[in-house]
Order: sequence, then C-alpha cells, then structure tokens
Amino acid sequence: MSKLRVVVWGENVHESTHESVRRVYPNGMHTVIADGLSESGDDLEVSTATLQEPDHGLSEERLASTDVLTWWGHTAHGEVRDEIVDRVQKRVLQGMGLIVLHSGHYSKIFKRLMGTSCSLTWREAGEKERVWVCNPGHPIAAGIDTSFEISSEEMYGEPFGIPSPDEQVFISWFEGGEVFRSGNCWHRGNGRVFYFRPGHETYPTYFDANVRRVIANAVRWACPRGQWVDSCPNVKNALEPIEVKGESVH
Amino acid sequence: MSKLRVVVWGENVHESTHESVRRVYPNGMHTVIADGLSESGDDLEVSTATLQEPDHGLSEERLASTDVLTWWGHTAHGEVRDEIVDRVQKRVLQGMGLIVLHSGHYSKIFKRLMGTSCSLTWREAGEKERVWVCNPGHPIAAGIDTSFEISSEEMYGEPFGIPSPDEQVFISWFEGGEVFRSGNCWHRGNGRVFYFRPGHETYPTYFDANVRRVIANAVRWACPRGQWVDSCPNVKNALEPIEVKGESVH
Amino acid sequence: MSKLRVVVWGENVHESTHESVRRVYPNGMHTVIADGLSESGDDLEVSTATLQEPDHGLSEERLASTDVLTWWGHTAHGEVRDEIVDRVQKRVLQGMGLIVLHSGHYSKIFKRLMGTSCSLTWREAGEKERVWVCNPGHPIAAGIDTSFEISSEEMYGEPFGIPSPDEQVFISWFEGGEVFRSGNCWHRGNGRVFYFRPGHETYPTYFDANVRRVIANAVRWACPRGQWVDSCPNVKNALEPIEVKGESVH
Amino acid sequence: MSKLRVVVWGENVHESTHESVRRVYPNGMHTVIADGLSESGDDLEVSTATLQEPDHGLSEERLASTDVLTWWGHTAHGEVRDEIVDRVQKRVLQGMGLIVLHSGHYSKIFKRLMGTSCSLTWREAGEKERVWVCNPGHPIAAGIDTSFEISSEEMYGEPFGIPSPDEQVFISWFEGGEVFRSGNCWHRGNGRVFYFRPGHETYPTYFDANVRRVIANAVRWACPRGQWVDSCPNVKNALEPIEVKGESVH
Repeated sequence: MSKLRVVVWGENVHESTHESVRRVYPNGMHTVIADGLSESGDDLEVSTATLQEPDHGLSEERLASTDVLTWWGHTAHGEVRDEIVDRVQKRVLQGMGLIVLHSGHYSKIFKRLMGTSCSLTWREAGEKERVWVCNPGHPIAAGIDTSFEISSEEMYGEPFGIPSPDEQVFISWFEGGEVFRSGNCWHRGNGRVFYFRPGHETYPTYFDANVRRVIANAVRWACPRGQWVDSCPNVKNALEPIEVKGESVH
Repeated sequence: MSKLRVVVWGENVHESTHESVRRVYPNGMHTVIADGLSESGDDLEVSTATLQEPDHGLSEERLASTDVLTWWGHTAHGEVRDEIVDRVQKRVLQGMGLIVLHSGHYSKIFKRLMGTSCSLTWREAGEKERVWVCNPGHPIAAGIDTSFEISSEEMYGEPFGIPSPDEQVFISWFEGGEVFRSGNCWHRGNGRVFYFRPGHETYPTYFDANVRRVIANAVRWACPRGQWVDSCPNVKNALEPIEVKGESVH
Repeated sequence: MSKLRVVVWGENVHESTHESVRRVYPNGMHTVIADGLSESGDDLEVSTATLQEPDHGLSEERLASTDVLTWWGHTAHGEVRDEIVDRVQKRVLQGMGLIVLHSGHYSKIFKRLMGTSCSLTWREAGEKERVWVCNPGHPIAAGIDTSFEISSEEMYGEPFGIPSPDEQVFISWFEGGEVFRSGNCWHRGNGRVFYFRPGHETYPTYFDANVRRVIANAVRWACPRGQWVDSCPNVKNALEPIEVKGESVH
Repeated sequence: MSKLRVVVWGENVHESTHESVRRVYPNGMHTVIADGLSESGDDLEVSTATLQEPDHGLSEERLASTDVLTWWGHTAHGEVRDEIVDRVQKRVLQGMGLIVLHSGHYSKIFKRLMGTSCSLTWREAGEKERVWVCNPGHPIAAGIDTSFEISSEEMYGEPFGIPSPDEQVFISWFEGGEVFRSGNCWHRGNGRVFYFRPGHETYPTYFDANVRRVIANAVRWACPRGQWVDSCPNVKNALEPIEVKGESVH
C-alpha cells in the first residue's frame, strides 16, 4: 500500500530571530512537527518545506504529489506569494488535505479557503489550556482522553471569525477565563481542512504527546478521497432534445 | 422606520458591446433590476453602481451606508479592483447582505467569500428552466408557487463548486437534462449571502415577475442583523487570575 | 402590527417538591421567564403553560396560534405525552419557533428534533459560568457584551450529543474547568430552534438581566418566517409530457 | 484485515403481495441489494434481515456486530417496533453507518434521525430519472460518470423535508419536470447517514450497475470511524478547584 505523502510547511522565521524560540526549536518548528508525524506510523512519507525555499518549497510538481499539507506561519504571512496561495488552494479543492496550525489562522491560505476574517482575541501569558473533545468518536480525537492539558500556551478566544465548522472536534478552556473553538473541520471542494489551535512558538507544544497525536490523526483524516479537477466546462450537447433559442454572447 | 438601502451593482459592459443585450436592456441590466426592487415596496431605497464609475461606484462611504448589495457581472470580473473586493468583503463580514446573480458566480467577491472554485457546467441555448422551491416556508420563496418557469435561459449544471449551502431554497431543472442548485444561502461573518442563478443577459429574465419577486425577497432576507467590526484584539487582562509564564514574541 | 405570541412552557414540578427551588421561584420558573419576556418589549403577547394542565396546556388550537414556544423541563420529561410532542414537532416544522432551556436538552421534543442523544456531562456545584459570544453580530447576542458571568450555575460539559449547530452563538467557560456549546441555532423544517444552556432551578438565573436579554432576543429571532404544511402529495400530472410506464403498487 | 459487516434490511412485503414486484425480485429486494454488495468486493461480509424475523432480524447482539445497515421499507413502516428503532438509532449514534434507500425516507428510523417530516412529492409513472453528481470527488460518487440514467423510476420531487445535508452528492432530474436531492450525507452522533433515492419496487433498479456502485461506495463511506457510547455522566470532581455553592435537586 502506498504511503500518504505529507508536507510539513513552516514559516521558519522566529526560530532565527527570537532566541526564546530557537531554544525550544533549534532546528525549526517544522522539523519537530515532521518528527512527530514520522513517529506516528510508517504509513506516512513526511517531508518539510519552508518559506525561504524557491516557491516556498511548494512547486507545482511537489504539490501534485502531496496528499496532505500542514501549515504553520505567524509573522510572515504577507511574504507568502499569492501565486503559491493560488496553487495550494487549487490543490485543496482538488482533494489535498490541509491542516492549519495555531497562528496559521491568519495565513493567506486559511483566509482564502474560509472567506471570512479568521480573527480572534489573544493573550500571550503562558497560561494553561485545556482542550476538550466534543465528539469522542471522531477519528481526529482517537486515542485522546475526554480532555488534555497544555501547561503553557498563548490564549486564543472567541469570537473566532470563521464559517460554522462542519464538525466540531475540540473546544479549549483557558486559565484566564476564555474559550475557543480549537479543532474545526470543513470540506472545501473535494479537500478537507482542519484547524488546530495549539502551537505558540515560545512553548514546546509540538513535543506534547496529545498534540502530536491530534496532528497525526488529522493528517490521516484529511487524506484525499478522490480527485476532482474543476474546469467550468461548456457542454454544448444536451442529453435531452432541445432547440437552440435566443442569441449568444460567447 | 428607516428604509433598507440597496445598491444594485452592474458590470454594464455587454449592454454596450452586444446589440443582442442592448436590445433587451437598453438602459443597462442594473437599471431593470433596480426598477424591480423599487416597485417591490416602499421600504427600500434603491440605487445603482457600475464598474465604470470611480471605485466602481463603491466608495468606503457608500458601502458604509449600504445595507444590501446585489452583484451582476460576467465578462469583466478581472477588471474589478482587488481593493474594492477587499472593501466589499469587509462590509459583508460586518453585516451587509450580498445577493449574487447568475454569472456573478465567477466574480471575485463571490469566489472570495466561498473559498472554492465556484465552477459549473454551462450551455447557451435558450432552453427552458424550471426553478423548484425546496423550502416553501423560506422567506426568499414567499409568494412563489411550488415552481416557476423561465422560457429561455442559459443552462448552468452541476457540479457547482461551492461549500454546502446553509439553506437550499431553489433547485433548477433544465430542458436539456441538467439540474443546478440555483438558490443558496450562506452566512459569512455577520453577513448573509444569497446566490440566485437566473439572469443571462440575452434574455429578459430580470423583467420576469417571479425572478423579481425572489430578488426582492432576498434583499429583505439579507438585511443586516447587527454589526460586528472584527479586529483580532489583544486582551492583555484576563478575567480570571493568571500568572504570566514564558516569553513573548510580540 | 400584530404581536408575537409566545408561550412559556414550564414543567412546574420541582417548584413544589423542592423547598430550595420554591424559595427562588415561588410562583414557578415559567412565571419568571414569562415576566422577563413581557418586560422586554410590548411587541410580545406572553402566556404560560404547564405540564399539569390538560394537554399540558398545548392544545391544537393554542399551538396553532403560538408563534414561539419556550421549553423548560427536567425531572418529568417522561410524563410529557407523545401525542403532544408530535403536535409540537409538527408546529415547529410548519414554522413555530422553539427555545429550549437548560435541562430541556433531555426533553422529548428536543431529542425528537435533533435525532441525537443530546447527552452531556454535568456537575451540580454552583460554580461560576462565563458565557462567551461567538458571533457578536448575531441578533440573539444583541446588547450582550463580549461575555457575561453567572455566579452560580450547574455545570454542563462537552461532549454535547447534538448535530453540528447551523450557527454557534455562545460557548460557556466553567470555573471547574469545562466548556460547553451553550447557545446553538438550528433550522428544522420551516422552524427555528435555539438551545440556551443556563437555568438550573436552584439558582436565580432567570432573574439575571443578561439571561433575560438572550431569551428575549431568541424569541424574536425564532419568529415564524412563513408557514409550510407538508403533506407528501402525489402529483399525478407532470409538467413535462411523459408516457406512463411500468406498474403501480399504489 | 477484518471485513466490514453489512446488514441489508428489507421490509419484504410487496414481494409477496404484488405480482408486479415478485416478478422483478422473486427472492426479495434485500437479496438483490445484498448480492450487489457482495459482488462489489471481498472486503464486505454481507447478510440480510427482514421485518418478519424475530426482532425484525435486528437483535442487540446482531446490531452490536454490524458496521453498516442498509434500510429499504415502504408499506409497513408502522409495523417496525419502536424498541427496534430505538436500538438502531442508538447504534447509529455510537458509530454504525446507515444507508436509507428510496421509500425508506418515511421509515421510523430515518424520521427519527432527521427530526423533520421527510416528506416529498411523488408520481408513479415509470418516467426517466437522471442522477447528477454534485461532487465528483466524493467517495460515494467514485466510478460514476457526470450523470447516469435510470429508464423507469418513480418520481420524487422537492420540497424534501430534511435538514440541510452536510454534503450533497447527487441531485436527480426527472422526465416529468421535477428535481430532487437524491444523494445526501449527514453525521448524527458518531454515525454517518446516507440517503439514496432510487429503488421503486416495480422496477429493476437494484440490478442497475450505477445504482449498485453507489450503494457499494456508500457502505464503505459509512463505515464506523470510532465508537462513542454516550451516557450523560455526572462528573463530581472538577479539574479546577471549586467550592460547592447552592443546593442540589439530585
């Protein structure tokens, strides 16, 4: 059986500009996320891509052979070129899965696929987050207890400016008093999109076993179901007999 | 009671370039759509805007005082400036209603709000379209019989590349054998979006009493429910006592 | 303009069997909920109905002239007669609004309309609940700040066994560490259904100004949009010419 | 790898009471549906159950070891015992897939899971049905062309009294002029539900290769994703420190 081809995309900026981030992720956050996926089973073929590579590491060829893409970005959303965003969106609509992580809520690709502001409220105080499972039978929650805790995280709070999720998998409770829809599923075109909240760069969140488990589950949930290349075709011939009437502008 | 302020936006290109269109809509399609709305009741204050005006007729000021915008475009989607699309999207997310008509399925603003391809199949043969009501109690279907016919229309067929509608109001049957989700509701941010299929420019569709009734209903359905200006605020102070831990990148 | 006719239904059992409830609601919870609605504006015509009345106060005639029904029950769900549940469901599908409160999550009518378990986790410890607004522009959240607190409430926690809400209006944070989808909208048939969590009978929750505001908003949101009496009709005559083939079992 | 355990449930009444049905399905419709599934791949373990068997063939034990149930009924919906419907619903909410066929739209189990009228309009004239694919990438449409035809079928038309589907897979066009949402997906609890329209008992629809392919795809799509036995637990101990306040009614 062929492996699921996963590309872990990382912005890879704060790792070099902020000592507090480098200390936690000396080889980049993308490397740690990729390691977590690789260790989750031998059904995955995991590689990484970063902003700094040509085409941000996402050439047409590479995307064409990617089944699921994970996306973490924060400070450099604006540097992601629009044509690459177009390319990723097109692949999602064809069937590629997309897992958007944490501050990726404000990435061009997530905003593009949602059509909404994707805004939220936030606080960077290292407070405790407790992630609750809303649907214990959902494959993305497999192996997760009724809830799990992350001792230090950035807070994200409602309102979260998204379309109603197709399925609500997780909601987070924060020590400071907020709540947040932290695990949300959507279908867009033929692709599946999952947003997962945890993962601020100054905390070792992507080493957490529960967080790794969720991302590993999500990647498998988002695997392509088929492929649909959409072209807006002109179907000149009708299946039923018709008589052409009126004039044409085409 | 204050009136609902409706702006009817028209691309206004084929009316001057195609004699077949000018014959049907000598003063522009937008004028006819606006007339239909004005005649539907004195609770509306209707005006028009076109591609050719400065800011395509959609200045910040004007949009700020618009409750519902209707959108018809076809051949010049690419000429709509991105900053105006940003502006319209922002207003929809704040609460402005948007009614997208016919070939507006491929407009920048509709694709922006849907996040999907918005593609479909099509045939320009002037065939009969029969529009069926899927939810007779929906306010957009008020006053419409179980179905109504348009004798000559362009065909649009499935697959229609949209996210699942929040509510399905109409589905069309075509003489040539196709079907199409022709009346679809979505919520995006705080705004309501309705797509309505009929309205090819070579046919007198916007003079049709049923079509006018649907658009008039839709405008009232899409009236703003409130306003939400979304800003992604940093909430430094927690409602519960917390102790700041870890480092910050902000 | 005619008033919106609201019936506040109360189970009205714990008020007489539990001194702790009688002390808070000496004239019944339904009376207090109804008072809150009456005081919210003179566009409502509010009355009450209880389990103990003939037909539980919900005769065919009365339901036929009810625009919105609110439902609070807890200990006696099983005593609500199935034929009355059938009757209420039928009216909701025709267009009557339904506001289900607190422990009404386990009422026959709510389970009937949802089709799911409607289960949740719970704890009766009088802890603090903070209700967060997920969509500040939603009419049910009108006049509510970003969040509001109830000092003592029963806790309800996820997983909540419901179909994905059409719109998420509120999510609650609990002092003890849980979260809950506490304000949820659905469309069923032509009717609107809103579930609102707060309202344990040993606390004065229905005297709370924010809670009253939400219920008052919800009643107006749920007002009928039209009416659809659904009958599964046999349409012997086709709109297009057909030739009858095959045999019939009818 | 263990096989997917599928039970094909058939009402099995018209096969003996109507010669026109017996001629097409001498061994019962369920047998033909089961044969189609068995021939679709050796990953399925297919068996049948009928109304006439003890517990309608759906004992607790059997349901507990069923992954996906298909349901065809028409004239005897009322004879299905409520306790069996409770049992099937419970299993669906836990994760069992359910494929509802044709006149099963009016079965107790489908109405139970939808919460709506499930009504439609209908005509028994053996007219042509053309089933269109709305999402070519959906696994239930795998191997199906853009549309397929069934030469003689009963007509079902809109409005179809269902909650908005989570995903729209098929919409049908009828010779007589109607349309119908003929392939609809929902999630309920942890289970997946698919409704598929074709299958009137006087026509050989369940011998049709496309219809068989759709049902075979649907069964695999609906395979359980996990299991969730929902129990409304009282969680006495909070994860955060709380002080019990107020009184209890439990």
